Amino acid sequence: MKSYREELWFEIPTRRALVNITPQVEASLRRSGIQEGLLLCNAMHITASVFINDDEPGLHRDFERWLERLAPEKPYSQYEHNVGEDNADAHLKRTIMGREVVVAVTQGRLDLGPWEQIFYGEFDGKRRKRVLIKIIGE
Amino acid sequence: MKSYREELWFEIPTRRALVNITPQVEASLRRSGIQEGLLLCNAMHITASVFINDDEPGLHRDFERWLERLAPEKPYSQYEHNVGEDNADAHLKRTIMGREVVVAVTQGRLDLGPWEQIFYGEFDGKRRKRVLIKIIGE
Amino acid sequence: MKSYREELWFEIPTRRALVNITPQVEASLRRSGIQEGLLLCNAMHITASVFINDDEPGLHRDFERWLERLAPEKPYSQYEHNVGEDNADAHLKRTIMGREVVVAVTQGRLDLGPWEQIFYGEFDGKRRKRVLIKIIGE
Repeated sequence: MKSYREELWFEIPTRRALVNITPQVEASLRRSGIQEGLLLCNAMHITASVFINDDEPGLHRDFERWLERLAPEKPYSQYEHNVGEDNADAHLKRTIMGREVVVAVTQGRLDLGPWEQIFYGEFDGKRRKRVLIKIIGE
Repeated sequence: MKSYREELWFEIPTRRALVNITPQVEASLRRSGIQEGLLLCNAMHITASVFINDDEPGLHRDFERWLERLAPEKPYSQYEHNVGEDNADAHLKRTIMGREVVVAVTQGRLDLGPWEQIFYGEFDGKRRKRVLIKIIGE
Repeated sequence: MKSYREELWFEIPTRRALVNITPQVEASLRRSGIQEGLLLCNAMHITASVFINDDEPGLHRDFERWLERLAPEKPYSQYEHNVGEDNADAHLKRTIMGREVVVAVTQGRLDLGPWEQIFYGEFDGKRRKRVLIKIIGE
């Protein structure tokens, strides 16, 4: 069994953004040399997400509006977490979007459906944050 | 290490449905011959879900009503994604329900709790769509 | 390839609670002797969750209030599942919070970010319930 580990670093200039990281994950898989196995890709921060969906800007604006409806950023005072913090909503938004994806590795490639793209979801940006890629297989 | 890959195909006649796929996943695991490991089962489409919950029809009707409350299908115009599309709600519903499950494989069996059943959640049906099963172990 | 399996048992005295299980999961990993691999930790019950977030009491009260807003416990009659049952809301709350986490194992440690902690989320307690830990690697 082989294993491979890599971190991707981000510093998103806005509070929230969705970033397509599929090319970086594919490049990491190539560097691993693993042909068959499983790839874990997870946010290492609890106010960010890694998820799979469509790379379509209209849908991304829908996600923004929808997450704001389900877990609004403001007023900050509505959340007990926001004592010296203002990011409770980011913890909740990331819960909806998910922490991680596990992707099959087949013949050295990410085994994704035709429209599946991997995203980093930032919900409390303007700071350096990380994503972990861990691949096991052979 | 062994690895095994299989696709399950669906063509759901309605827009939305929840289908218990536990027997198909178990059959796939038997074909793999893997005794100890991890099994990934994921929707390969971004408007469908694989999730684990209870096989109880009342609960499934509750899921339908609840998802319609959190991410209503109509009016289609409420979503920016719906330009030549009408399935933005399906992307959001699948986000709530999740893309994938990872299940332990122990002594050649799906290592599930007593009520855990694996479901395919279709939120934009009437077309052919796929689920991926990838198993690694030995 | 090595594999390791362990169950954690809980009997939460209240209907709902969030319990930090990171120390138990770390202890399980040490017992496994696995240095590099993947660790799956999942609720074996469909009204409970395993998730990763922050160990901050204010945030946990925010989760309680937020989940009650998205999937209220009462009135019980609002759910079709609640025929001889009263836990439909627990199935929905656990769906939001997620069934499982997959964590990378690196150099014999849980490869978590600085604030990542693993929680058992109970949404229908006052009974004995289990979490499964399955680790594969070498």
